[in-house]
Amino acid sequence: MSAQTTLPSFNNTLMPQPEKLTVGQGGLVVTSSFSVAAPQFRDERLDGAIGRMLHRLEYQTGVPIGKDILKDPANAALVIDVKDAGEAVQSVDEDESYSLNVTATGAKLQANTVVGALRGMETLLQLVQANHTGYFIPAVSIEDTPRFRWRGLLIDVGRHFEPVSVIERTLDGLAAVKLNVFHWHLTDDQGFRIESKLYPKLTGVGSDGLYYTQEQAKEVVAYARARGIRVVPEFDMPGHSVSWFVGYPEISSGPGPYKIRREFGISDEAMDPTRDSTYRFLDGFIGEMATIFPDPYLHIGGDESNGAQWKGNPRIVEFMHKHDMKDTAALQAYFNRHLLKILEKHHKHMVGWDEVLNPGLPKDVVVQSWRGEASLAAGAKQGYQGILSAPYYLDAMKSAEQHYLADPLPSNSDLTPQQRSLILGGEVCMWGEQLYERTIDSRIWPRTAAMAERFWSPENVRDVNDMYRRLDVMSVRLETFGLTHLTQEDVGLRALTGTTGIDAMRVFASVLEPVSFHERYEGQHTSQLTPLDRLVDAVRPDPPSRHEMEVLVRVFLENPSQHSGEQHRLLAIFAEWTTAGSKVQQLVVASPLLAEDATERVQQFAQLAEIGSQAVAHLASASPAPTGWKQSSLATLDAAQKPQGLVRFTVLGPLRDLVNATQ
Amino acid sequence: MSAQTTLPSFNNTLMPQPEKLTVGQGGLVVTSSFSVAAPQFRDERLDGAIGRMLHRLEYQTGVPIGKDILKDPANAALVIDVKDAGEAVQSVDEDESYSLNVTATGAKLQANTVVGALRGMETLLQLVQANHTGYFIPAVSIEDTPRFRWRGLLIDVGRHFEPVSVIERTLDGLAAVKLNVFHWHLTDDQGFRIESKLYPKLTGVGSDGLYYTQEQAKEVVAYARARGIRVVPEFDMPGHSVSWFVGYPEISSGPGPYKIRREFGISDEAMDPTRDSTYRFLDGFIGEMATIFPDPYLHIGGDESNGAQWKGNPRIVEFMHKHDMKDTAALQAYFNRHLLKILEKHHKHMVGWDEVLNPGLPKDVVVQSWRGEASLAAGAKQGYQGILSAPYYLDAMKSAEQHYLADPLPSNSDLTPQQRSLILGGEVCMWGEQLYERTIDSRIWPRTAAMAERFWSPENVRDVNDMYRRLDVMSVRLETFGLTHLTQEDVGLRALTGTTGIDAMRVFASVLEPVSFHERYEGQHTSQLTPLDRLVDAVRPDPPSRHEMEVLVRVFLENPSQHSGEQHRLLAIFAEWTTAGSKVQQLVVASPLLAEDATERVQQFAQLAEIGSQAVAHLASASPAPTGWKQSSLATLDAAQKPQGLVRFTVLGPLRDLVNATQ
Repeated sequence: MSAQTTLPSFNNTLMPQPEKLTVGQGGLVVTSSFSVAAPQFRDERLDGAIGRMLHRLEYQTGVPIGKDILKDPANAALVIDVKDAGEAVQSVDEDESYSLNVTATGAKLQANTVVGALRGMETLLQLVQANHTGYFIPAVSIEDTPRFRWRGLLIDVGRHFEPVSVIERTLDGLAAVKLNVFHWHLTDDQGFRIESKLYPKLTGVGSDGLYYTQEQAKEVVAYARARGIRVVPEFDMPGHSVSWFVGYPEISSGPGPYKIRREFGISDEAMDPTRDSTYRFLDGFIGEMATIFPDPYLHIGGDESNGAQWKGNPRIVEFMHKHDMKDTAALQAYFNRHLLKILEKHHKHMVGWDEVLNPGLPKDVVVQSWRGEASLAAGAKQGYQGILSAPYYLDAMKSAEQHYLADPLPSNSDLTPQQRSLILGGEVCMWGEQLYERTIDSRIWPRTAAMAERFWSPENVRDVNDMYRRLDVMSVRLETFGLTHLTQEDVGLRALTGTTGIDAMRVFASVLEPVSFHERYEGQHTSQLTPLDRLVDAVRPDPPSRHEMEVLVRVFLENPSQHSGEQHRLLAIFAEWTTAGSKVQQLVVASPLLAEDATERVQQFAQLAEIGSQAVAHLASASPAPTGWKQSSLATLDAAQKPQGLVRFTVLGPLRDLVNATQ
Repeated sequence: MSAQTTLPSFNNTLMPQPEKLTVGQGGLVVTSSFSVAAPQFRDERLDGAIGRMLHRLEYQTGVPIGKDILKDPANAALVIDVKDAGEAVQSVDEDESYSLNVTATGAKLQANTVVGALRGMETLLQLVQANHTGYFIPAVSIEDTPRFRWRGLLIDVGRHFEPVSVIERTLDGLAAVKLNVFHWHLTDDQGFRIESKLYPKLTGVGSDGLYYTQEQAKEVVAYARARGIRVVPEFDMPGHSVSWFVGYPEISSGPGPYKIRREFGISDEAMDPTRDSTYRFLDGFIGEMATIFPDPYLHIGGDESNGAQWKGNPRIVEFMHKHDMKDTAALQAYFNRHLLKILEKHHKHMVGWDEVLNPGLPKDVVVQSWRGEASLAAGAKQGYQGILSAPYYLDAMKSAEQHYLADPLPSNSDLTPQQRSLILGGEVCMWGEQLYERTIDSRIWPRTAAMAERFWSPENVRDVNDMYRRLDVMSVRLETFGLTHLTQEDVGLRALTGTTGIDAMRVFASVLEPVSFHERYEGQHTSQLTPLDRLVDAVRPDPPSRHEMEVLVRVFLENPSQHSGEQHRLLAIFAEWTTAGSKVQQLVVASPLLAEDATERVQQFAQLAEIGSQAVAHLASASPAPTGWKQSSLATLDAAQKPQGLVRFTVLGPLRDLVNATQ
């Protein structure tokens, strides 16, 4: 194999980037005699992972590859040396490091644990490249270990249920980008999603029949463990718990009866922290859940309990007086202390949202911060471990770039080294109010891959252009797990128009994205019963147009009369918008559901095309725009920025730059 | 509601077409006060179906609709009157008829059974139309009943396993087009896919771990029943049974040991029909399966048993001599007679492929014909009931048109009325050699919808243009069940090119389709282990381009110098091909997997564009083509028709027509 001389240079599309990477010459050609040896440690988990890797390699290259795992490394293309299985129950301290060396004659993956080997195999698959003759793994030397120990994704299945198949394909995606925690938000006001055999009415009347059986939950836990992912279940208490009360009003602080809550937002209802029976109930429940979820951590929520139901119950008010509690926060702290004892009994560490932070709690409580970096730092200064989530809310509909640049522990943080070590990592949050199984993937992916890199790679890996270049490749890789983030927009556009002829709609949708959760909530007053079938549900957050147009305009504006490539590209884009716009207008008229959101937007779309092409023409010819043109164009762009139709344009910034650059 | 005056005229997009349809004026507007009453019979199945219908109506219209089912019809927009539940176990004689009357003030659906109501609800959802103000159900009067009693789809999960989620979304699709049988081909040489607790090694070593638990199978049966669909399981015997022998070689006719067979095609192995122990085994197995599958029919396969293993076993040869059996067909008939007794014991009727047809079998055996209409008719003439499958093989990669026009019982058939009544219907067959969960949907849909109409609607419903018009709408409807037939091509193209930028690839793929099973098998020597990741796996059978180009060219050629609309459309298409072609060429070079199949095809694609545009230019100007042009163009088209890359062009016929029309 003299592959060194004929193979092209290394194209780094790894995501997340490894800690250390050295590129060699040439690479290892993938042929049908490709084989794997694991001469040291082997177990079922490693074998399963190798089998999946080989299957993926085979599909990526079209080269049929034998699945037998060899003992003898002599003839193996890839040798996987693992020291041992790793922790029986993966903890936050699991060793995930690995090294990977590829030469023209073979590859070697070394890791202390199976989890490290899993991470290395994902890297190996991402390395595969092609030239005109076939596929190869470039010669590289990689030493890799994560920056943060806790790298998670939360999925809220309380507001909208997600089937097991959605969870499992998401776990495949998490593993591919080296995330290691699946935070399963299993209960909320709007639904109780995990079967309890002890308390069958929890799902019996609190779930609309949409819940995971214990067997399914165990299957998910096993699926995650096979991929080196911990499953941290969350049972939100004492608030966000109306769905519990539908079947068991006796643990609430009010008289009941209750119905599943359909509205979103903070609710008044809360568990009754004053009664022993509440704690006996929770003891039973948590004991039962501990048999399903082996993770050392259990998330008790603790957020957004407004105390209203407590204050409305004279018996509870009297209890507070009697125990010298000055406010409901004190009562919640009392509740948490009791809950902590139950968790300790069942060998679980407590995780909770910012609100659980209370001097009365022991230091092994982990605080997950939805409030922000300041809250996280405040916790660390008090000695609490923390996980940052505030900048990683997917439903804020921010760009991958914005998420990517938010660091859980920036080097300019004022924390001491000891305090810094308390920042365990970050968690991406996928709250479930405004999505369901058909739309969740495009909300999670590919943006989560960018955040995964933030949590794994060195702090100085933050080149946004390069991130977007690799994110596009990663997005295609993720699709092989059955994730629908790249197909869902088309499905939505077809449903809205009732036709397969959506070429023009695609062009229109390419410059639109959903507004944030809050803006939609205000605009549409969404509840659990709102059909999620609008234009806002079809379009994707941070579509490629945003960054591409930014770059294109930036380069063009450097020298408008010189950059004719960019000029033509921009003019072609604006011409495409114009053509598409008139076709979309016809479709909009025929679809009331689409008309509601798109009537005004498609008119603006045509205006944007016109402004863009005019601006480019003025700039390219270096001739002044007609009097008033700039002002009226900016006014049009301002109008297009106003909330309308629950979607927003992704290209207004660059268009404004174009207009402002004219004379 | 004076909707009558403002609503547009009725756009019939029903598929299948009902037996009788009368269109009225105006229609029923869908508002958020839409409600359903079921004042007569109700049961869990009906309630569930109404809930699903309302959910779908809600998503289609964006109008939130209450889900309570009323008792009092007075204020209901839709009244559903059902006489009774229908059969406890749906038989081939279940009453599926219904009537549906819609006026501006309300809709009434009447049926004798819940199954009839299910069919009517699908029709109701397909009626929904939009105008500029909102959604409405046009005023119609429909009387509907199926032409054939047995309208099925076979899915072979033996060659490639399909997860429950794939099966369930397919069942949703079947219900939407009013098919009523899911024929589950559960076992074959390449895999045993249903758990047996009596014989755990069947899946233990015969399935690669890919099988349905009994619980999952029961879930599928319940899912199907909820949609008025029977589940007919097939356990192929005595051949196609290597996977049985991996765990239980003692029921085979050879010494063993056996491995799961990876190759496709007819195998020599077969069960040993001479031993009592074989029948005891089958008695146990079928008894166990009868507890999972309540359907009165059980399919025993019986196809393609070549007798080779029997002839190679002296003991079996001696047995044949002793019992005066002149050939292995006689031995198979002996096997079938014993099998029949076992089926009778477990209250099952026998279904088998053509080969089971044998004068020794009683007349309640149903023959499913893969051999063709003649074989089916021959069976009927002997008094056997039959189901036609030969013209409905999806892996033949025929057009929807070809499938659609093949009638199970054409009016010119020479069968007597009595014999005609023995033709129960038809079954679409999805054999599993060359597909898997990522590609199966586009092989099944939308073509199966056209065949479903053939099985349900009157014989004279056979306007191909109108079928394609409605099929496009139906295809979008089917997508709402999570079926991936319209998205899978993009997924495949992205995987092949490693990029999200596939606009040009889409244009290229739009005129390609997979070759038939046989052509691919010959060309690629596919086995169960072949990665199904080629261009042929991405592209769709019978893409819209085929019929569209046919129609476009036909209209254009009626008067080439007059039809300037068609002329411009054709020239635009050819120009698009040219532009896309050069971009695709760059992608092809970068992807070895794609290059293998597309290198030559993309060159031909450019040639087709050139020929097409030249032909149109000559025709439109009514000027003769240069000397030799026609001949060389036809030679190029001939070359493009040759097998290459496992894909074929869909537009060669119309292009040839264009060339031939030049002077």
